[in-house]
Amino acid sequence: MEDWREVSARKKKSNLEKIPNEWRLSADIRAKYSDSANVLDVPKTSGVLSSKEVEITEAYDASGLLERIAAGELSSYDVAVAFCKRAAIAHQLVNCLTEIFFDQALERAKELDEYYEKNKKTIGPLHGLPISLKDSFNIKGVQSTVAYVSFASHPPQESNSVLVDLLLSQGAVVYVKTNIPQTMMTADSDNPLFGRTLNPLNLSLTAGGSTGGEGALIALRGSLMGAGTDIAGSLRIPALCNGIYGFKPTSSRVPFSGKTPPGRLGSPSPIIASIGPEAHSIRDLELFMSTVIRAEPWDMDETCLTVPWRSVTIHGPLRIGLILEDPKRPLHPNMLRTMKTALTRLKSKGHSIIDITTLPTSLWTLSLNTWKFFRLDPQKTPLKHIAASSEPWVPSIAATMQPEFAHFSPDLDALFEMNVERKKVVKEFHDLMREYRLDTIMMPPYQTTAVPHDTYGFPVYTALANYLDWPAGVLPFGKAEMGREREEGFVREGVVYEPEYLPEKVEGMPTGLQFLARPMRDEELLKIMAIVEDDIRD
Amino acid sequence: MEDWREVSARKKKSNLEKIPNEWRLSADIRAKYSDSANVLDVPKTSGVLSSKEVEITEAYDASGLLERIAAGELSSYDVAVAFCKRAAIAHQLVNCLTEIFFDQALERAKELDEYYEKNKKTIGPLHGLPISLKDSFNIKGVQSTVAYVSFASHPPQESNSVLVDLLLSQGAVVYVKTNIPQTMMTADSDNPLFGRTLNPLNLSLTAGGSTGGEGALIALRGSLMGAGTDIAGSLRIPALCNGIYGFKPTSSRVPFSGKTPPGRLGSPSPIIASIGPEAHSIRDLELFMSTVIRAEPWDMDETCLTVPWRSVTIHGPLRIGLILEDPKRPLHPNMLRTMKTALTRLKSKGHSIIDITTLPTSLWTLSLNTWKFFRLDPQKTPLKHIAASSEPWVPSIAATMQPEFAHFSPDLDALFEMNVERKKVVKEFHDLMREYRLDTIMMPPYQTTAVPHDTYGFPVYTALANYLDWPAGVLPFGKAEMGREREEGFVREGVVYEPEYLPEKVEGMPTGLQFLARPMRDEELLKIMAIVEDDIRD
Repeated sequence: MEDWREVSARKKKSNLEKIPNEWRLSADIRAKYSDSANVLDVPKTSGVLSSKEVEITEAYDASGLLERIAAGELSSYDVAVAFCKRAAIAHQLVNCLTEIFFDQALERAKELDEYYEKNKKTIGPLHGLPISLKDSFNIKGVQSTVAYVSFASHPPQESNSVLVDLLLSQGAVVYVKTNIPQTMMTADSDNPLFGRTLNPLNLSLTAGGSTGGEGALIALRGSLMGAGTDIAGSLRIPALCNGIYGFKPTSSRVPFSGKTPPGRLGSPSPIIASIGPEAHSIRDLELFMSTVIRAEPWDMDETCLTVPWRSVTIHGPLRIGLILEDPKRPLHPNMLRTMKTALTRLKSKGHSIIDITTLPTSLWTLSLNTWKFFRLDPQKTPLKHIAASSEPWVPSIAATMQPEFAHFSPDLDALFEMNVERKKVVKEFHDLMREYRLDTIMMPPYQTTAVPHDTYGFPVYTALANYLDWPAGVLPFGKAEMGREREEGFVREGVVYEPEYLPEKVEGMPTGLQFLARPMRDEELLKIMAIVEDDIRD
Repeated sequence: MEDWREVSARKKKSNLEKIPNEWRLSADIRAKYSDSANVLDVPKTSGVLSSKEVEITEAYDASGLLERIAAGELSSYDVAVAFCKRAAIAHQLVNCLTEIFFDQALERAKELDEYYEKNKKTIGPLHGLPISLKDSFNIKGVQSTVAYVSFASHPPQESNSVLVDLLLSQGAVVYVKTNIPQTMMTADSDNPLFGRTLNPLNLSLTAGGSTGGEGALIALRGSLMGAGTDIAGSLRIPALCNGIYGFKPTSSRVPFSGKTPPGRLGSPSPIIASIGPEAHSIRDLELFMSTVIRAEPWDMDETCLTVPWRSVTIHGPLRIGLILEDPKRPLHPNMLRTMKTALTRLKSKGHSIIDITTLPTSLWTLSLNTWKFFRLDPQKTPLKHIAASSEPWVPSIAATMQPEFAHFSPDLDALFEMNVERKKVVKEFHDLMREYRLDTIMMPPYQTTAVPHDTYGFPVYTALANYLDWPAGVLPFGKAEMGREREEGFVREGVVYEPEYLPEKVEGMPTGLQFLARPMRDEELLKIMAIVEDDIRD
């Protein structure tokens, strides 16, 4: 068996070779940045992008860019070149890509321009938008290693994931796939095949996971919209860590078929991974969702529910249920300050805040319950994929190994009981929403900002939405400011923070807010998030 | 422990005592009928019903009756009395009821009349309609034994099933619960607590199951609309056997919470029981579905999906995929004749028939696959409920014990594989529908008509829709006519029928047709069934 390091080196080299020489950063640019640098501005100043390309990649969210393409003011080709270049720069800075197929992308962009030229209209609402994809999506002619060294010998895929076909049918351009954690079940996008993705806002911190390559790439504006998956927070954690927007829909609304799974197919777990977007605005999240669902994905994918996208209007004031924190994972002063600031502003705008923090079952217990469903496979398939190459385990995997799992060996009897318990909790949350007539639940996405590599730990605040199968979105709001946290009294005496509160290390990093709604109310939740965002900004 | 026979005798006696003396059939009326009699006309001729009550119970389907109530031409009270009486007669003829609460029903009907009087309008679209319920629904103040002798000591229920509350909110009157098979997992509604429900069209034949008490009661017009459940055909089998209409919706559209289960809660099986109606017309099936879903049941029941009822229009001609028969369960001459007759008429009306009978996996195998999901509970909970009273097993249970299950001892590994296999099949059927652009699949609901008690066997033709979780409906069409079957060449040489082809025993019994559509297309399926019905009638 070939040594895993050689496999990894070859894969990384082959990726770098797909970046044209003129798009490469010079060694001296890269040397300029410390281990904890913020590299968000490097693409602009690198000299690789023309001023027009800087404008294309920096001046818009996806919706805004699409308007200019649709108006004929920008060509799909120029847009594709700009984002290919910028993604290449991003990759050299934070190691966020797993597969690069710029040639396919530029070819596709040319076809879109020809279509536009000939028909004087766009092919669909995503005409000319480069969309980046988590590595687990399949693209014809491109590998899907899902970051296992043992998958590096697999042939390229023979067909696209259903969602990829759908996005293409609506005019999208696909050009890169992005990095993920080993097994996709930790919050650090680190693996022996591709290495670690760094946080572009602070290279010493995690980019989050499992859709972490996306998070870093989008923050660097190497992409304006990326598709990922979320089974315990995998879209929302990177959104928080990188200061962007992330949305996990109700499961089975976005077509899931034709992806490469990191584990075993056929799990009886009721916790179902959901595909959703990471992006630069709430309207872009909505653009993704409405475009995908209006394309009637149930016709292409038998696992997708026939549930049409509804146009909804939400009239404030909102009734917001608040889950502030779990005692096992107290909010760090930065996130506490962000939550309190948002709450004050929301109240001042007339919204009602109903504190439901004291839950019948704690978030901590519910996140353990969630994780047990991920441990049902008696064959422990991910372990086999890892053992097949003798690749080492990445350090962050250990963080998900709670002592509670030590004696958990699931069988059918246990699964019946886990299901009964889950249904009880789903009913409790449903009843809470009805009893207090809540439009949404507001909670932190995590106890703090992005943290140093391998210390993120158990995703106590994001797993809830997966356990319930409720839609959930994260929006960036506030940042870590240790001076103010201290001055304003958010540093609490006697609180034991997990992970450690390291204010110097995370200074300036974005915090964020998380919102949940009842199942299938993806439409309402996005409108609620937009109202909230309007009302909390200064 | 009290002998189960005594418990059963007491329960039956207590039911009979709820039937007023003047509604009882005289011994000489009952003695008039042979063991294979058709008793459909007995209610009319029994002398128990006034001529107005005969008109109320015989002249309408539910939609028609509701129109007269809404127009103020009939009072809810008179309607309730008529159906209570007729249900009482039906019970004395075919033993179809498990719980009787006429007093509650008449009280409720009076309140509805008072509301109507005062407000000059109905309370909702079901104002004044008596709706019968399968025994597994809970009614406040009424027992839910689900036909286990060991449950006969349980106290009355303290609250209604969610669906019951919903139906009441729309104006319905509830008055009886109806008989089911022991364990609810056979097609003979027979159990040691209540005894056997007979088929009112021929007392020597099965009324079907598990919603069999409903089927018999509705055929006798002791009810115009009943709610039951279906996990392998339990609504559709009694519809066929009793010559009425039955509809199994996509799961999780009709609220399921608050029922008494015959087995263990928390099953990880992806085969999910679905509540639906049995009735006297397709428009009544649609009335039930649209009324329930327009009431936004997801607000009352967290297990119910937020999927609004859509108003749809279907323009023919239809593209109909035909599954004619499974080689392991050849169609008897009666059902074969019915299918061929319908096909000829449909073609003559311009519909396209696409034969998909040769499936990638046979119906027989798929029904075994379905049944394996019902055998996941390591604690075999129904067996415990039976053992708790030492009640005997009913004979028809044996019919579901296929030799294929002898060595099937499920574990998590097996369940992963069963799920993978099921998803493969779901995709195959989805692809079939797309490839041939099919609006519906047409197939027989069973290989023949209702058959002698305890011989129905494995529900090979109905389990498919449950395995796929597709909506499916049965409509009555044709009947067994041995003379024509022979003359027209439908008696095939060398075919081994299972159960036995007994033309004399089933002469005149109704046959029927089954239609399936893709998931969540309940709306479309009902419209398709209406088009078909129009086009196949003479």
